[in-house]
Amino acid sequence: MMIPLLQEAVDALSSVPGIGKVTAMRMALFLLRRPEEETLRMGNALIRLRTEARYCRICNMLSEEEICPICADSRRDRSTILVVENIQDVMSIEETGEYNGVYHVLGGVISPMDGIGPDDLPLDSLVERASSPEVREVIIAIGKGMAGETTSFYINRLLARTGVRVTAIARGVGFGDDLENADSLTLGMSIKNRTPLL
Amino acid sequence: MMIPLLQEAVDALSSVPGIGKVTAMRMALFLLRRPEEETLRMGNALIRLRTEARYCRICNMLSEEEICPICADSRRDRSTILVVENIQDVMSIEETGEYNGVYHVLGGVISPMDGIGPDDLPLDSLVERASSPEVREVIIAIGKGMAGETTSFYINRLLARTGVRVTAIARGVGFGDDLENADSLTLGMSIKNRTPLL
Repeated sequence: MMIPLLQEAVDALSSVPGIGKVTAMRMALFLLRRPEEETLRMGNALIRLRTEARYCRICNMLSEEEICPICADSRRDRSTILVVENIQDVMSIEETGEYNGVYHVLGGVISPMDGIGPDDLPLDSLVERASSPEVREVIIAIGKGMAGETTSFYINRLLARTGVRVTAIARGVGFGDDLENADSLTLGMSIKNRTPLL
Repeated sequence: MMIPLLQEAVDALSSVPGIGKVTAMRMALFLLRRPEEETLRMGNALIRLRTEARYCRICNMLSEEEICPICADSRRDRSTILVVENIQDVMSIEETGEYNGVYHVLGGVISPMDGIGPDDLPLDSLVERASSPEVREVIIAIGKGMAGETTSFYINRLLARTGVRVTAIARGVGFGDDLENADSLTLGMSIKNRTPLL
């Protein structure tokens, strides 16, 4: 015997990948017990996230305004554009505090297997931005692997005619990682791209 | 750099026990990508669950009406009341298909450590129901352990003056469980309460 209200909530929660029926039921029972305003806050936060989210007209980053805070910030260095696959990548890089340029979020990579071709990504706007005289460098920070390599290669070729400098983020063994645990491709890259000892 | 809309959704999701920041972020990003109507359906299902849920006036089971479908069902045997701790217990027992009586949901057990005393549980209404001439048996199906035992003992004493028969569900080794894995209390109970071989 399942109460329809509870069934609906459990079905909705378990429609999220990684949330099974048991976890969904536990979540629903918790939401049922906690103070009403907290459950309302949660339901409304999810609704607002989906209905009020916009994407920056310049870089496609998740934003609440037409132009995201990074693109709108006059202290950011507009001569460098860092190309990433998704909004999480922007958040991760911002957390490092090491980058002061602007971004271009692709929202995916070229992957014919998944039906995603170059026309499905905002590449025209990237070329247009890179063609601006103020832009001197485009840094590609797209994941390795078949789709990532294809996309990087494609972008590199597209940007060739703009004359902008195209670079890629360094790949290597992470700080604190043991060499024996690094894959040989990464280890090879970290030797090839070695830097002077500071 | 965290977008406030996303931050709110992640905070709300990770306020649920068992949902960490990483899982909450993964959920939020999924909700952001999926079709808008599905995210709205989820947000609204959670809000409705909390605002429209009521508890049966007779047995305290979660219900959408003043009287739950079980109490309202004339085919249920009103001479037997099964006392459980929470609404999940009712759903679990209903799933077995072995019980056709009615329920009484306590919503907790007596636990002085958690500040829950007898007055915090709907025990007066249980005594009142058990005092009705049509009720012949009250089955206690409360978990073992200190708080459960205390509660069962207390209810048994309360019901003594009603003259109703008070029983407890059988405890024993589960079907398919190995004897070597059963705890000795359970194994002892299952020997003491042995039944004729069918």
